[in-house]
Amino acid sequence: MRRGGELERPAIAYETWGDLSPSRDNAVLLFTGLSPSAHASSSPEDPAPGWWEEMVGPSRPIDTGRYFVICINSLGSCFGSTGPATTDPTTGEPYRLSFPVLTLEDVASAGKALLDHLGVDRLDAVVGASMGGMTALVFAMQFSGSARSLLLISSAMRSRPFAIALRSLQREMIRRDPAWHDGNYPLGEGPVTGMRLARKLGMITYRSAKEWEQRFGRERVAEERQSGNPFALDFEIEAYLEAHARKFTGQYDANCYLYLSRAMDLFDVAEHGGTLAAGLATVDAERTMIIGVTSDYLFPVEQQRHLADELKSVGVTVDYQELDSIQGHDSFLVDMDRFRPTVQSFFSTD
Amino acid sequence: MRRGGELERPAIAYETWGDLSPSRDNAVLLFTGLSPSAHASSSPEDPAPGWWEEMVGPSRPIDTGRYFVICINSLGSCFGSTGPATTDPTTGEPYRLSFPVLTLEDVASAGKALLDHLGVDRLDAVVGASMGGMTALVFAMQFSGSARSLLLISSAMRSRPFAIALRSLQREMIRRDPAWHDGNYPLGEGPVTGMRLARKLGMITYRSAKEWEQRFGRERVAEERQSGNPFALDFEIEAYLEAHARKFTGQYDANCYLYLSRAMDLFDVAEHGGTLAAGLATVDAERTMIIGVTSDYLFPVEQQRHLADELKSVGVTVDYQELDSIQGHDSFLVDMDRFRPTVQSFFSTD
Repeated sequence: MRRGGELERPAIAYETWGDLSPSRDNAVLLFTGLSPSAHASSSPEDPAPGWWEEMVGPSRPIDTGRYFVICINSLGSCFGSTGPATTDPTTGEPYRLSFPVLTLEDVASAGKALLDHLGVDRLDAVVGASMGGMTALVFAMQFSGSARSLLLISSAMRSRPFAIALRSLQREMIRRDPAWHDGNYPLGEGPVTGMRLARKLGMITYRSAKEWEQRFGRERVAEERQSGNPFALDFEIEAYLEAHARKFTGQYDANCYLYLSRAMDLFDVAEHGGTLAAGLATVDAERTMIIGVTSDYLFPVEQQRHLADELKSVGVTVDYQELDSIQGHDSFLVDMDRFRPTVQSFFSTD
Repeated sequence: MRRGGELERPAIAYETWGDLSPSRDNAVLLFTGLSPSAHASSSPEDPAPGWWEEMVGPSRPIDTGRYFVICINSLGSCFGSTGPATTDPTTGEPYRLSFPVLTLEDVASAGKALLDHLGVDRLDAVVGASMGGMTALVFAMQFSGSARSLLLISSAMRSRPFAIALRSLQREMIRRDPAWHDGNYPLGEGPVTGMRLARKLGMITYRSAKEWEQRFGRERVAEERQSGNPFALDFEIEAYLEAHARKFTGQYDANCYLYLSRAMDLFDVAEHGGTLAAGLATVDAERTMIIGVTSDYLFPVEQQRHLADELKSVGVTVDYQELDSIQGHDSFLVDMDRFRPTVQSFFSTD
């Protein structure tokens, strides 16, 4: 592990779609954001819709008729990959907080180990959005020559203090929940209230004020859903956040969330060589697309432009796309009308 | 009270600076944001610096050599005015959650009652920023003719769902703290953790990403302040928020915070007459200045422009000022280089 410690026989959960070509040159690797599993799209083995269902599939922008698409569950997550919630083989107990400090470099290295296992020397493309974009970027830096092209969506070269502050507060909400028990909650249970609060703050930072103004305005919840408690749900926006937060808790392990959240804070391309340019200098993708969203205030367009400019400055060919979606940081998951053609154009260029 | 219930013999704490002229036409009333007391500036009776020290005083922009300046502690707050933390004379117990639903209209009415007590029929100006701006606006609507001019800073005609979501989450952090005890904590103690978390989220929404990028970047706290806990304070921005949050808790009563926070959510000029224009139609100030800050994302400039445009549409003379401060919603408290001359220009115009 980059910051010390090691994992014995770590597992990496992944899913694939499509077939690897005989020349093994049509693989596309997807790194995910903080919360998704490797289930990016439905498949005969698992027909449930994936987290990027409309983007990944036959004749979809990431065309599984043409590409061998791989999505991994990040190292440190809790959907099959080794993380704080899995058993440490050296003790027979869950790692919990004995899990080593996690970095996105480690998550990227796990991706490389998977490619070695699959016999893929060079990807056609490595793709990621949000935390996945940061991971894809550092993958391209650490494993120079391993990817022909690079698609980064709403990502960053480093975390800014504003985003660190928000994530630090989310982690504190979880850690202050008495049910966290310093990380020693019974697995599968844990700090439900802290996770609910953290998820609500997440939702607030993933969307945009403009979207909510259009969707919810000052609509009130129906009378029968109002409890009479003056501080309970009254506005529709409050009911919306509550519904989303309830869906999330129970699905995600709290310690895994803490580790991956902190990994994003720690990320800084300039740790590789002392400056951003030095860090990026090892990127040798033939071409790169950077996509930013104007309403994203967590990973704002200034960061996307900065990333595009720095990559150009080290000689990388960059196609910079700025999209006017109103759904903020989450736009890549929901504004398919804008994202589908843009991602499509990346994959139809040679 | 606007939403039902009544208060018996409510107290309103206030401070004044300067002298009321013989013709009683030089009074300026300040409504405050959510957290300040009536101590806007130092005085012989209380030499501690006030929350708007550089703005209010002799030869300062709100010139106490010229004006009789009054600042009130909002009804529902906990610095001398009646609120959830004071004793209900009908029961001899603190009101706590039996306090009636509070609205900014009630806060404005308390201001009018104070003016009646002081023998001021017509103010030279009513002034407010943030929640105080919303209160000053509804004061001018409800008590048409009571103010010759109106200065509103970083305020709003109604709360948008984005701001409601943030405040709802802050309230939930407080209410989920077991020490809140459904509002029945021992006064002076209470939900310290919930208040700390809520204050941190407040700080995040009151400043701007750009300011923090410039002030903190990715600076780390000194080694000796790092605890070894991977989730404890590591970045300077985390230490900064912690220090501010600790200062706040203990000062502010949790139930008062909940009531005033909700009062902001409930505020909507359109409740007065059915539309924004109908609500504003009773404003008869001779002139109005609206100040917005480009980096404010809690009360964004779009809301300030909208307010200015709506006021113009009902025939009010509006001087709209947009300031390029980088300190976000809090700029009126800290960017004195921009705010002093702007407020000065409001008061030197006749």
